[in-house]
Amino acid sequence: MQKHLLAAVAAASLVLPAAAQANHHENSVAGQADHALDHDTAAWDFLEGITTEVGPRQAGTPDEARGRQWAVDWLNAHGFDNVADEPFTMRTWVRGEEEARITAPFAQPMYITALGNTASTGAEGITAEVVYFPTYADLVAAPGGSLAGKIAFISHDMRPTQDGSGYGFAGPARWTGPSVAASKGAVATVIRSIGTERHRTPHTGGTTFAEGVEPTPAGALSNPDADNLERMFARADGQPIMMHLTLTPQWLGETTSGNVVGEIAGRDPSLPPVLVACHLDSWDLGTGAIDDAAGCGIVAAAALNVAEAGQPLRTIRVLMAGAEETGLWGSEAYSAAHIDEPIAVGLESDFGADRIWRFESNFRESNPNLHARLAQSVVRFGVANSTSVATGGADINISRDQGGAIIDLQQDGTRYFELHHTPDDTLAMVDPEQLRQNVAVWTQVVGILANEADDIQTGE
Amino acid sequence: MQKHLLAAVAAASLVLPAAAQANHHENSVAGQADHALDHDTAAWDFLEGITTEVGPRQAGTPDEARGRQWAVDWLNAHGFDNVADEPFTMRTWVRGEEEARITAPFAQPMYITALGNTASTGAEGITAEVVYFPTYADLVAAPGGSLAGKIAFISHDMRPTQDGSGYGFAGPARWTGPSVAASKGAVATVIRSIGTERHRTPHTGGTTFAEGVEPTPAGALSNPDADNLERMFARADGQPIMMHLTLTPQWLGETTSGNVVGEIAGRDPSLPPVLVACHLDSWDLGTGAIDDAAGCGIVAAAALNVAEAGQPLRTIRVLMAGAEETGLWGSEAYSAAHIDEPIAVGLESDFGADRIWRFESNFRESNPNLHARLAQSVVRFGVANSTSVATGGADINISRDQGGAIIDLQQDGTRYFELHHTPDDTLAMVDPEQLRQNVAVWTQVVGILANEADDIQTGE
Repeated sequence: MQKHLLAAVAAASLVLPAAAQANHHENSVAGQADHALDHDTAAWDFLEGITTEVGPRQAGTPDEARGRQWAVDWLNAHGFDNVADEPFTMRTWVRGEEEARITAPFAQPMYITALGNTASTGAEGITAEVVYFPTYADLVAAPGGSLAGKIAFISHDMRPTQDGSGYGFAGPARWTGPSVAASKGAVATVIRSIGTERHRTPHTGGTTFAEGVEPTPAGALSNPDADNLERMFARADGQPIMMHLTLTPQWLGETTSGNVVGEIAGRDPSLPPVLVACHLDSWDLGTGAIDDAAGCGIVAAAALNVAEAGQPLRTIRVLMAGAEETGLWGSEAYSAAHIDEPIAVGLESDFGADRIWRFESNFRESNPNLHARLAQSVVRFGVANSTSVATGGADINISRDQGGAIIDLQQDGTRYFELHHTPDDTLAMVDPEQLRQNVAVWTQVVGILANEADDIQTGE
Repeated sequence: MQKHLLAAVAAASLVLPAAAQANHHENSVAGQADHALDHDTAAWDFLEGITTEVGPRQAGTPDEARGRQWAVDWLNAHGFDNVADEPFTMRTWVRGEEEARITAPFAQPMYITALGNTASTGAEGITAEVVYFPTYADLVAAPGGSLAGKIAFISHDMRPTQDGSGYGFAGPARWTGPSVAASKGAVATVIRSIGTERHRTPHTGGTTFAEGVEPTPAGALSNPDADNLERMFARADGQPIMMHLTLTPQWLGETTSGNVVGEIAGRDPSLPPVLVACHLDSWDLGTGAIDDAAGCGIVAAAALNVAEAGQPLRTIRVLMAGAEETGLWGSEAYSAAHIDEPIAVGLESDFGADRIWRFESNFRESNPNLHARLAQSVVRFGVANSTSVATGGADINISRDQGGAIIDLQQDGTRYFELHHTPDDTLAMVDPEQLRQNVAVWTQVVGILANEADDIQTGE
């Protein structure tokens, strides 16, 4: 930290009004937040329960439906009001057999997993020459038709970043790489996993084929396998590298998913509620612990903690969205169903279970006093203020659609993409201490918001 | 470190004769060792080459045969003398389909891999109630017949240890657990992986069924899955936990494996050679980088480095054994074939690629001067002397069978059982700096041994 910045921080502390200092009274929101930091058990209880008793909860499948029922039961058991499962329908894609092996010149198997929305190779699989693209840009630059009959290999490498910005750098290889390759004639695409670790656990995730591009098979190799394939190109001395690929996913057609909701009813039902969101569905490879049972545990625990400090002024509505992973279906369905019910402010937790390090809102200019009060309230938990403008997570479409107030409690994403969409997204990877820091920060922030009489966005 | 020990070490240093101090002359063995510490490329070249161009090398399979040919070519290309592939036959077991899922009361899939030498469930699999044993001792204590029709779950947990002693603590759950369970009527056994990490990568490995016990299916769950299964028992409230298990390994009958040998010919062929060993085969899940391509790279690189310092007095014989993982077949075959050819001293590298931290011999009492000289020569690489008696690795049966001299250059095993026998045994997990430290230590030790005129064991 630079000296002039240190001085500025010190000066700011001196001039803060007493009211802006955290109130540590035991029955206050601040007291609840402090208590949560060391003692919260609700978030862990949710997280352990759903990962143990339900496990993977892929969107649109019976596993996700069991997850919804489990969440409904949990919310009811913990005294939430107006608990409901709001169904919607969606197109559902499921994984099949998955096998990749290099057949020449260096025969060996590789660990692969199919990407969501991709096509099947058929049970017999396909064998084709692999064409190597070190980056997404290299693929984009390839001439039209140049991949006819080939398997494209996009090896765009990802590095960890605290704010998750590495996903924006590497993500296109998955999000649209297979479509770009298919548009140039590729019969299939394999990508380096969009992940930052070197384990043999490939990272799945959705991909989208552009209008008019026929979907092809596509999968992600684990990072060590992508490393190995790169080395093969370096050692093959121009010999073609041949891969046999079997991926047999299928579309199940329209199936039912749903959004689970529950409330801590506020004292004044005429005031718009505070919406705290997460998603219940997960990819099928892991047990969906960090993505996103942790988020659901955090927001639900925070709502309970705020209620412990006394019935809040505004209702706190918990939205555990369905079918986020396969296209934000739940977020869209929720917004469509509730667009006419104003939301005071929306917040989402969906970036793992590591500590919150930064506070952002989209009303720092329109309601500077509240922004400052909120930011100041969580400094004691190691959370920094920011001038970045919050844009909200995937599950709060409704706040964006309404043009409403949004807060982002940014989590440390340094480890997140080691686990994201892999078999390793399990309870074993959750740090209970950091999980509780999340609950503490959420309790503090939601507690202030739910007891704020003035409009969140304008302060009026 | 305690004060009196520090004093003893300081005193010892003062009285060492000048000749025992490391000689850093560039063309000396010590100079070669020092150079290897920062610059060795041969070990990495072997390791990268065989893991990239061959990959998994399961004993008795065509993959292992390709590995032998690759090693023969590499040894010839690097100027080794008398390179040969010495074949032997063995019974060969190979993996089939692998699937485990809990069907009630908490349905979800689990990651499992079959243990070597186990039986098949048949393609349809079996469904049975799981009986939980927290430790191996709990299983042993179970009454005879009490597991009739059940699947035994042995959840004996392992902790990392620098010297690998945790393997002795936890290993019996794999080595004989399935046999013990079968003897009490179990239709199958699942164990917690014998491993120290929390990744979704189960650890395979061999198991042995006692005489008269019919082999059953048996597999290892990944550690997070074993954790999850334990939690299910805690939450099931007495309901039976049912598992569907499909494991379809098979015996291929007698197939051919082989030992690859090569030599740095010494100046005096009448002197018994120094035997440096490793194993070429690997389990099929990873690419056999730390187990044990690294060991082969280390011993071969050390032999080359010693030769660089001038033709050694004694021949250095490299033994890259076949079929270690499935029962030390190669080590036995080598000993049987060569028992009448005296070995001066045997050393093996087969505990990963992390740094060597301790020097042990079995001639500290019979040839104290040489033991002290060797130990002192590697202190500069961070290697401690020890009074532990070396017993040698799996691949130097011949030294044990001959009652000969043995040295153990003990590697840091803290990380080893995170990777051991898993898909994660890949090049990505090798630290090049620690690999080079191994080569440096081996170069120094083998260089002294290969230039020692007196009998290694007796000093006469």
